Amino acid sequence: MDFLYLIDILGTFAFAVSGAFFAMEKKLDPFGVLILSFITAIGGGTLRDMMIGDLPVGWLRNPTATIVIFSSAIASMFFGSFIRKFNMILFVFDALGLGLFTFIGIEKGIQMNFSIGVSIALGTITACFGGVIRDVILNTVPLVFRKEIYALASIIGGLLYFLFLKFGIDNDLAKIVCILVIFVIRIIAVRFHLGLPRFYNRDNRA
Amino acid sequence: MDFLYLIDILGTFAFAVSGAFFAMEKKLDPFGVLILSFITAIGGGTLRDMMIGDLPVGWLRNPTATIVIFSSAIASMFFGSFIRKFNMILFVFDALGLGLFTFIGIEKGIQMNFSIGVSIALGTITACFGGVIRDVILNTVPLVFRKEIYALASIIGGLLYFLFLKFGIDNDLAKIVCILVIFVIRIIAVRFHLGLPRFYNRDNRA
Amino acid sequence: MDFLYLIDILGTFAFAVSGAFFAMEKKLDPFGVLILSFITAIGGGTLRDMMIGDLPVGWLRNPTATIVIFSSAIASMFFGSFIRKFNMILFVFDALGLGLFTFIGIEKGIQMNFSIGVSIALGTITACFGGVIRDVILNTVPLVFRKEIYALASIIGGLLYFLFLKFGIDNDLAKIVCILVIFVIRIIAVRFHLGLPRFYNRDNRA
Repeated sequence: MDFLYLIDILGTFAFAVSGAFFAMEKKLDPFGVLILSFITAIGGGTLRDMMIGDLPVGWLRNPTATIVIFSSAIASMFFGSFIRKFNMILFVFDALGLGLFTFIGIEKGIQMNFSIGVSIALGTITACFGGVIRDVILNTVPLVFRKEIYALASIIGGLLYFLFLKFGIDNDLAKIVCILVIFVIRIIAVRFHLGLPRFYNRDNRA
Repeated sequence: MDFLYLIDILGTFAFAVSGAFFAMEKKLDPFGVLILSFITAIGGGTLRDMMIGDLPVGWLRNPTATIVIFSSAIASMFFGSFIRKFNMILFVFDALGLGLFTFIGIEKGIQMNFSIGVSIALGTITACFGGVIRDVILNTVPLVFRKEIYALASIIGGLLYFLFLKFGIDNDLAKIVCILVIFVIRIIAVRFHLGLPRFYNRDNRA
Repeated sequence: MDFLYLIDILGTFAFAVSGAFFAMEKKLDPFGVLILSFITAIGGGTLRDMMIGDLPVGWLRNPTATIVIFSSAIASMFFGSFIRKFNMILFVFDALGLGLFTFIGIEKGIQMNFSIGVSIALGTITACFGGVIRDVILNTVPLVFRKEIYALASIIGGLLYFLFLKFGIDNDLAKIVCILVIFVIRIIAVRFHLGLPRFYNRDNRA
């Protein structure tokens, strides 16, 4: 339980930082940076809670997330002034959040006795939709749909986790390994521009 | 009951195919096609269930939708390689889904004892918002707001259905006729570019 | 209670008009104007109700909102033909809705025994997210993130309200004053282009 709590805080921190740097790259004002940081960090979990009916949604019941997000966003704005490569930090923290939040969602699915498939879907929604909502609000085609592997990393990590559990590997160890797997897949995918081949449609323009 | 179940599966199939072809036209990778197909098919029903509080939302409780969507998306990708007119298939299946899903939403409204007006609104939301979410995520102005009649077809079909019921026409027959009416209105609207006149604003630029 | 009901109807009216004029400026057809007017007026409250679990969401239980919205949208379309400055009316009514709906959300938070912080967050969500959804659907960067102070006005008004209550000022009076404060802050901000300084990022392009 304590371990999951730590993952939750780390994931919230990671996505809050990624949201803040994204907002700074888009040149929003400090207040816009706060809001976007917030939406990125709680968006996926909020959608998940609304879909499974675990209401009021998490951040309304527990102020920890809000405190973590506001501190992270303010720190990002402060240190951001010294940093020239916003993109780099945005990607690293986003990849970290992707790994961490996948397990918050999976755990919620297990707690509510959903099947393995649904639990992995909840993990992916928790991990990906904060970013999707962030991108949609700022009129960018979501990261999820851009060239490099994104949601797929979260799904692979989730499948691996249930495989590990089946082979009797320690739960906490399995989580840590799978979080790292998701993080590494995502970083490698972006670094080497790895993606699945896209559809090529001969005579349509769009 | 069986009949509604069939409508649900057919509607899911139709929207999954329309979502897949939309994604292929936008040149997403196969994984993006799967996700978009999924969002198009379950988006409207998910929003409806979240709004009326029928939680967890449908597709989390029943794996049928997921199986239908994944099969439809994979089949679309396979056959899509042989097809040159993506747009055409996208429009036909979208129109079919519009008709079918209108009745899934209306039925849910009737089951929950909502008024006729709310039931029709739920039908329209079920039928239209999967596509709206699909379009919004991909940064396109939603089909609903483009020139040709869209949501209006769903509303007309819904009104006609309650009128038929009032005149004692058989429930299943009334549904089939109204689904066809919605489908035909939509196809005719697109084919002949039928739409309501738009506002013309003399001195604003946007 | 009666007083809150009045605020709710006025807020619904204000946002319905702002949504209708926004849609007319974007040259949608009359049906699109109706839908957009509806989304603008009920979007924030719907999101709030889905997040706190007060389901079915408000407008499904009570037809008043729907009647107010449809009348306002139709009146806007009628009078819109005589008006040349859509932008102006859009901004004034949007600012009014911002003030009014902040208190509908805060009241809901107080009723459900949420903390002051959460209540203000619910007020801001109720007041801002109808417009955010409206803007996102029409592919515009949300008003909230544009140069002038927007959500901040709602938060300031909310904080002031709880401060007034603490000093024993009459509840209804406190509400009226704070609604006016929010309205005036927003109008002044737009009139004089007041905003927080934005981030300037030296070597990124976006």
